[in-house]
Amino acid sequence: MENKKENFSEWYNEIIDLAKLSDKRYAIKGMNVWLPYGLKIMRLIDNIIRDNVDNKSFQEVSFPVLITRSQLETEFEHIKGFENEIYWVTKGGSEKLDIELALRPTSESAMYTMFPLWIRSHQDLPLKIYQIVSVYRYETKHTRSFIRVREIHFFEAHTAHVDYEDAERQMSEYMDIWSSIAEKLCLPYNIDMRPDWDKFPGAKYTLAFDTLMPSGRSLQIGTIHEYGENFARNYDIKYLDINGDLKYVSQTTFGLSERLLAAVIGIHGDDTGLILPASIAPVQAIIIPIPGKSFKEVLDYSGKILSMLKDINVRAEIDSRENYTPGYKYNDWEMRGVPLRIEIGSREMESSTVTVVSRLNKKRLNISIKEINNIKNMLNEHDKQLTLNAWKMMEENTVFIDDINNIPMNKDVLIKAYWCGSRECSDALEQKKDVTALGTLYNLNDSGKCIVCGNPGRLSMFARSY
Amino acid sequence: MENKKENFSEWYNEIIDLAKLSDKRYAIKGMNVWLPYGLKIMRLIDNIIRDNVDNKSFQEVSFPVLITRSQLETEFEHIKGFENEIYWVTKGGSEKLDIELALRPTSESAMYTMFPLWIRSHQDLPLKIYQIVSVYRYETKHTRSFIRVREIHFFEAHTAHVDYEDAERQMSEYMDIWSSIAEKLCLPYNIDMRPDWDKFPGAKYTLAFDTLMPSGRSLQIGTIHEYGENFARNYDIKYLDINGDLKYVSQTTFGLSERLLAAVIGIHGDDTGLILPASIAPVQAIIIPIPGKSFKEVLDYSGKILSMLKDINVRAEIDSRENYTPGYKYNDWEMRGVPLRIEIGSREMESSTVTVVSRLNKKRLNISIKEINNIKNMLNEHDKQLTLNAWKMMEENTVFIDDINNIPMNKDVLIKAYWCGSRECSDALEQKKDVTALGTLYNLNDSGKCIVCGNPGRLSMFARSY
Repeated sequence: MENKKENFSEWYNEIIDLAKLSDKRYAIKGMNVWLPYGLKIMRLIDNIIRDNVDNKSFQEVSFPVLITRSQLETEFEHIKGFENEIYWVTKGGSEKLDIELALRPTSESAMYTMFPLWIRSHQDLPLKIYQIVSVYRYETKHTRSFIRVREIHFFEAHTAHVDYEDAERQMSEYMDIWSSIAEKLCLPYNIDMRPDWDKFPGAKYTLAFDTLMPSGRSLQIGTIHEYGENFARNYDIKYLDINGDLKYVSQTTFGLSERLLAAVIGIHGDDTGLILPASIAPVQAIIIPIPGKSFKEVLDYSGKILSMLKDINVRAEIDSRENYTPGYKYNDWEMRGVPLRIEIGSREMESSTVTVVSRLNKKRLNISIKEINNIKNMLNEHDKQLTLNAWKMMEENTVFIDDINNIPMNKDVLIKAYWCGSRECSDALEQKKDVTALGTLYNLNDSGKCIVCGNPGRLSMFARSY
Repeated sequence: MENKKENFSEWYNEIIDLAKLSDKRYAIKGMNVWLPYGLKIMRLIDNIIRDNVDNKSFQEVSFPVLITRSQLETEFEHIKGFENEIYWVTKGGSEKLDIELALRPTSESAMYTMFPLWIRSHQDLPLKIYQIVSVYRYETKHTRSFIRVREIHFFEAHTAHVDYEDAERQMSEYMDIWSSIAEKLCLPYNIDMRPDWDKFPGAKYTLAFDTLMPSGRSLQIGTIHEYGENFARNYDIKYLDINGDLKYVSQTTFGLSERLLAAVIGIHGDDTGLILPASIAPVQAIIIPIPGKSFKEVLDYSGKILSMLKDINVRAEIDSRENYTPGYKYNDWEMRGVPLRIEIGSREMESSTVTVVSRLNKKRLNISIKEINNIKNMLNEHDKQLTLNAWKMMEENTVFIDDINNIPMNKDVLIKAYWCGSRECSDALEQKKDVTALGTLYNLNDSGKCIVCGNPGRLSMFARSY
């Protein structure tokens, strides 16, 4: 296998092939086939997202994939931001369609043409909905599995509120939801307030959750947007308030995508393959029966262990493939990132124990089946350790600089510096080294002199981004 | 509410609106918005399907929605069957695409261009995969929610086998899977071998699962197809057999759609609204606390009942909406088809009981909380009764005729008759009354004289179809 540290891109592509996560040999470049193992992991990620938003009274819906040109054009800034990336349906059968239909690049314009039908009075607010669907972008840039594709597995939450204040409360709630999701996926991140020129088309402001890939390049893995009344005014989304006055709603959105999987693969994996957080591992513990004397009994004993694990809600499986050595199986499951391996031979059977091997630190532990509950703790421990390692890696690759001449030139890192927020100063940094402004760090009131112009600035992040 | 028996179409549309299953006011006719309650029911149906195929070693995948024109045109019969119904993407941004891309009408051509990459030897067979996705048809006919739409929620299983015999075994396995799904949904059906002119484009033969809607019209709710080597020869899907010879695989497919939901709505509902099988009811038991003296204690007691129900895996909720009378709530949940209502007032609280009311027969039962497990049995009983009622309705609306002059002319029914299988005789029946041949009944070797020409025939079904 490729060396992850030295050849990250090659390592990343190789592990996606080896672990059979997705197949990029489909006839359309950038549209990949989700293979069973990759899809299972993504579904477990989806379920974490779903649990967290359901918990906050969001309701799941599903909108059509097609959006008419006139729906899209209702918000001018918005369509302008996407127009070069839209796939257009222009024919039905052999007929030319009267109106061109877009494959959704995102669903504001689909949803907000329905909101006026659903929202009448303040009693209908807040409206909080989400969907998990595919969205489409006619990417002209180089595509990369789970990072930049043309058919994107996408989560989008949309809300409408009585006023800006309530929309701002929603923005805070998103932060809580996000931190809980990121914790489950063991992912480190910064919250960056995107510069005005890089916010979502149509938004008042955009906050992004950015993580760092081992290549030293930044990866945006989530965004939340405050729209204020911007879309409401264009789509005419009004409600009757308590006094009987018609008012525009204020709106927000929250977006996540399959990039969460890209981050999990890239950040946690090692030169042996994937390492999955237990929270999203389709198999959390793989049982390998070791051939030898009384193998039949060993298999029965393995079955018993399997059902004990299922009883305590551990996702476990037995690898009973014939014609494969235990050694082959060890490598195979290590490559697929399973947190714990359980080896069972006649020794274990006779002593009523199992041998547990950690994917992360390779430590072997022989535990009595009376203590099988410990497997749960070991899975939690696995996730904790992954989280620590991941945050540590991000910190080690973040460099604070107070002098533009001290920028590390030889490798990609996250650069932290004071910045006045101007385009000119950001461009100056970009000229010095190929990095762009991710934005100022959210909720940090740490101020200092802009590293470029010396004017008052705030602590900000710069990086080369995916 | 409309009278279901007399105005079925109006009743059907009305209940979909009232129960908020989907919203058809979206900007594109025939592309509807799945609302939370409808989506929840559909997801529960999907899970039943998933459990049943996972159980038979199918693996879930997800293919791109777009298919190139050349992928589609590889199988001539197949494209011919769909060409008038395909939505074509012809532009990306403002550029004209080099090759036109179809929104999948079904996924044979997407999947079978990948199969040659996945199948090398007999060890890779059987290959059994499925996906649950949306498919697209540019319908020119009148659209109808969940029955005929332009964006269809779709399940499709695809298999490849070493030979025809093994593919035929797969066809039998599909029957088992289907009967288990239909049982869960309490749906009656016939298995009809479609006439040659009505089989799936590219198939050797098609077996359809047809049910009867209360309108007297037949509804196809599932199909399985034997492809033999037809697609394999066009897509060049070959494998090395045990002797090292290259052979074509044999293939089959199994398709289901949101029509399952249409059947559930239409067949089980009554003039009060939906009646959902417990197996797919998002809320199986709704708890209504009755206001009165010591209401706070009644609410606490209701909470206790709720957690008891959750402990025995009953999907239960408390309707604690203020400003609504119990009577309003009863009607509301009846309309939404919840199998059991649990009324809790101070009387119930003081006697440590609950009052359970059945949606189906309105019977009231006061049971001790010590017997709360009985709720499970009552839910099973509910599904059994629904199943009996549904099969009875289909039988009562099926008419066997042995004389073409005895066809009931005033209403739509399922017509059972001996038929020689020829197009001419089927057309003769169609001319007499607007019915078409659904096909001969599968696995029935009951033979007799064709009702039209008198030649040897087999027992067959005719109906007006959706």
